[in-house]
Amino acid sequence: MTSIKHHPTVTLIQHAGGDTMVAAAAKVSTTGDEARSLERIEEEGGISGLIRYLMRHRHGSPFEHGMMTFFIHAPIFVIRELQRHRIASYNEESGRYKQLEPVFWSPDDERPLAKTEGYKPSRPTFEAGTTEQYELIRKHDEIYLQIYEAYEEEIAAGIGNEVARRLLPVGTFTSCWVTINPRSLMNVLSLRIHDAGAKAVSYPQREIEEVAQAMETAFAQHWPLTHAAFLKNGRVGP
Amino acid sequence: MTSIKHHPTVTLIQHAGGDTMVAAAAKVSTTGDEARSLERIEEEGGISGLIRYLMRHRHGSPFEHGMMTFFIHAPIFVIRELQRHRIASYNEESGRYKQLEPVFWSPDDERPLAKTEGYKPSRPTFEAGTTEQYELIRKHDEIYLQIYEAYEEEIAAGIGNEVARRLLPVGTFTSCWVTINPRSLMNVLSLRIHDAGAKAVSYPQREIEEVAQAMETAFAQHWPLTHAAFLKNGRVGP
Amino acid sequence: MTSIKHHPTVTLIQHAGGDTMVAAAAKVSTTGDEARSLERIEEEGGISGLIRYLMRHRHGSPFEHGMMTFFIHAPIFVIRELQRHRIASYNEESGRYKQLEPVFWSPDDERPLAKTEGYKPSRPTFEAGTTEQYELIRKHDEIYLQIYEAYEEEIAAGIGNEVARRLLPVGTFTSCWVTINPRSLMNVLSLRIHDAGAKAVSYPQREIEEVAQAMETAFAQHWPLTHAAFLKNGRVGP
Amino acid sequence: MTSIKHHPTVTLIQHAGGDTMVAAAAKVSTTGDEARSLERIEEEGGISGLIRYLMRHRHGSPFEHGMMTFFIHAPIFVIRELQRHRIASYNEESGRYKQLEPVFWSPDDERPLAKTEGYKPSRPTFEAGTTEQYELIRKHDEIYLQIYEAYEEEIAAGIGNEVARRLLPVGTFTSCWVTINPRSLMNVLSLRIHDAGAKAVSYPQREIEEVAQAMETAFAQHWPLTHAAFLKNGRVGP
Repeated sequence: MTSIKHHPTVTLIQHAGGDTMVAAAAKVSTTGDEARSLERIEEEGGISGLIRYLMRHRHGSPFEHGMMTFFIHAPIFVIRELQRHRIASYNEESGRYKQLEPVFWSPDDERPLAKTEGYKPSRPTFEAGTTEQYELIRKHDEIYLQIYEAYEEEIAAGIGNEVARRLLPVGTFTSCWVTINPRSLMNVLSLRIHDAGAKAVSYPQREIEEVAQAMETAFAQHWPLTHAAFLKNGRVGP
Repeated sequence: MTSIKHHPTVTLIQHAGGDTMVAAAAKVSTTGDEARSLERIEEEGGISGLIRYLMRHRHGSPFEHGMMTFFIHAPIFVIRELQRHRIASYNEESGRYKQLEPVFWSPDDERPLAKTEGYKPSRPTFEAGTTEQYELIRKHDEIYLQIYEAYEEEIAAGIGNEVARRLLPVGTFTSCWVTINPRSLMNVLSLRIHDAGAKAVSYPQREIEEVAQAMETAFAQHWPLTHAAFLKNGRVGP
Repeated sequence: MTSIKHHPTVTLIQHAGGDTMVAAAAKVSTTGDEARSLERIEEEGGISGLIRYLMRHRHGSPFEHGMMTFFIHAPIFVIRELQRHRIASYNEESGRYKQLEPVFWSPDDERPLAKTEGYKPSRPTFEAGTTEQYELIRKHDEIYLQIYEAYEEEIAAGIGNEVARRLLPVGTFTSCWVTINPRSLMNVLSLRIHDAGAKAVSYPQREIEEVAQAMETAFAQHWPLTHAAFLKNGRVGP
Repeated sequence: MTSIKHHPTVTLIQHAGGDTMVAAAAKVSTTGDEARSLERIEEEGGISGLIRYLMRHRHGSPFEHGMMTFFIHAPIFVIRELQRHRIASYNEESGRYKQLEPVFWSPDDERPLAKTEGYKPSRPTFEAGTTEQYELIRKHDEIYLQIYEAYEEEIAAGIGNEVARRLLPVGTFTSCWVTINPRSLMNVLSLRIHDAGAKAVSYPQREIEEVAQAMETAFAQHWPLTHAAFLKNGRVGP
């Protein structure tokens, strides 16, 4: 049975590293062999200041000795944008190996979708839609059902998944594993979250922004000092 | 007006490097400063043997000092697979910045699409379809038209492209620039072309295979010795 | 005080992931949303067979959802070779920010170093040296001391580390953090360990091979099924 | 015969792409299929404004459809720093396959090398040295000769190059091919050239800065609009 889903879901599956590891990796530059001792790094303190220094002066590599793995359930158009970031590892549900599930994305009534006055194609900005607009969308959501029936009919007729899927919309949900290190994640966050106060303001589509926000929450929890330094640096990664 | 297109198209836009450059880059290892002289490399001959040696013994980096840029017009499901290769540069038509064109992929009557006896989901193999199967596909192609009308209707109603596109199928054509070096291209070719005699046999979808074949033709023309060594090595890159 | 060290040392600092994670990441292709459940993957069993299948058929990305961080203390000439692998993260002791320690590499009497009959420059093979050869080396080890004295004298005279270091030999030990995922590590291992029975035989320098062997030991301990599949596949990664 | 060389040398071997290609690649986002026509891009004009826009708003991928190959002759300590940039392709002279040449780096009398007042190890700044300092360096340059004699003596005694090279200083010159695209090059330039007016000021060692300056000259010649936009953007790449 077809279902409509309004938002992507993101689950943190595993993570390793943390602020101490960032500091310890950086200290190998200046202390050599002794950087082996994490305990010592923690005792010495000053991790927070060191991390801010690294961020500000674009010393990026210490932020690579960590990782997070996320499970993401999102529309194909979101996963498409995400996979343009070549600095992560991906495994995704296959439309050739299996029949895709009938879960489709549609905006709920909170989702701004009407072009604003002075709308620029290259930096799309939206405001709340009219009742008519939301109704039009609801009406068209039924096309999803019709498409999925045609898709299933072809598969039932012995046609390969890879051919039948041609009809499936980019609003179809897909599942994807993403593994990424903190440095690469900060790059993604800087491009996929809108913050009017950021040094370089981005205009992402809201749905990939929702994915990025969930990732940022996990990141902030496990790398609190690194995340604070990222914010202080105007959401610019090292 | 909606149109159906059966095959991707691929155009070589620019290229640089070639077999001599592969050999010259390799020679820097053993001759140092003199590798600067390309003329000398050509005079000395033996480029073909050197290239075969590099390929067989997995000396990959000399194959990176060259590049090709392709313009590819292909269905979204093909470009999705292509962009999973993180070792190339991509720019693609945006479904946020513009309204996508109504060009859709559908198999012609030559395209095998019926699951063979002993079909394995993880290595899909197909044979010619029945008349009924092709007819079913033709009938469903009309859904493309209906979807595109809904898409246009939403855009006309002032709804953002990025929301309206949710309905567009992965069979919709998109345009993409791809820049890649010979080493990375050989990796793509080894995975995206089926050759029963290859050392590691791949089972790609036919449409990405068509893209890969066009790329291979351009590659073979401009790097003839490298391409011959790739074939001789069982379609395994260095 | 100058010291001579004969072998690199390698310490595993952190790791995440494991065989179950490889299998679970692969299963997202064929099961979609359910791949979220690691417990289920373990219950189902068959992980070993799945991993061998992925390895043999070059499905590489499931091997990227894991990581190991190593602390490596090795001569500069080893770290130079290691850093040519662009698929890892590095932080290294800086000869600009600090004075390097007087620890230098020299072969012990077990280290084969005499060119064999039929020696080929591009695949160097060695046998045990003569007494005279080892004595010559011991005599020259004293040059290390002399160089280090000159280095210290310049620094004491107020000359920048970055200028004084020009004299330091590539046999000087340096400290380096390396973070790498299993897929990339298998690539390194296939190129940096000699095994006459491997599908593609490599001829690495013994000292980087020692580093690679220590990495392989840690890898085999934490990814036993993946490591077994790598061996079974002739030491060719996916 | 040993020789002293004061500066690296950099030669542009090949290049492809240019400002028009940057603009054309960007236009595929907004025009799709028509971006195939480079002539049209040039007629339309506005390339300069478009490139500045891309740079400012961090649209980086259009700057990847081009390449430059450089031949670089520089001390090992410079090539070590350069190879830390994983976003380029390298082939370097091998100290295992061949005997390295006796060409060594030493600062000439113009090279600032005395630590300034308020010297910070992590941002080393220098002023002109004293006569005594330059004399000390000249005296120590003779160690190069002595080391090279020991190196040759070992090789003559049948000891492998890879063992004998342990004594060679990081000031020894080596030859290296580097292939890089404009986007990656801008990243290197932003980190390896000091400009007090840059948005993020870097403090590179003078010798890698000399390499970077030569690369920048070639870049500015073949991508004049891109280079101008890079400067205007405070030497921050996209």
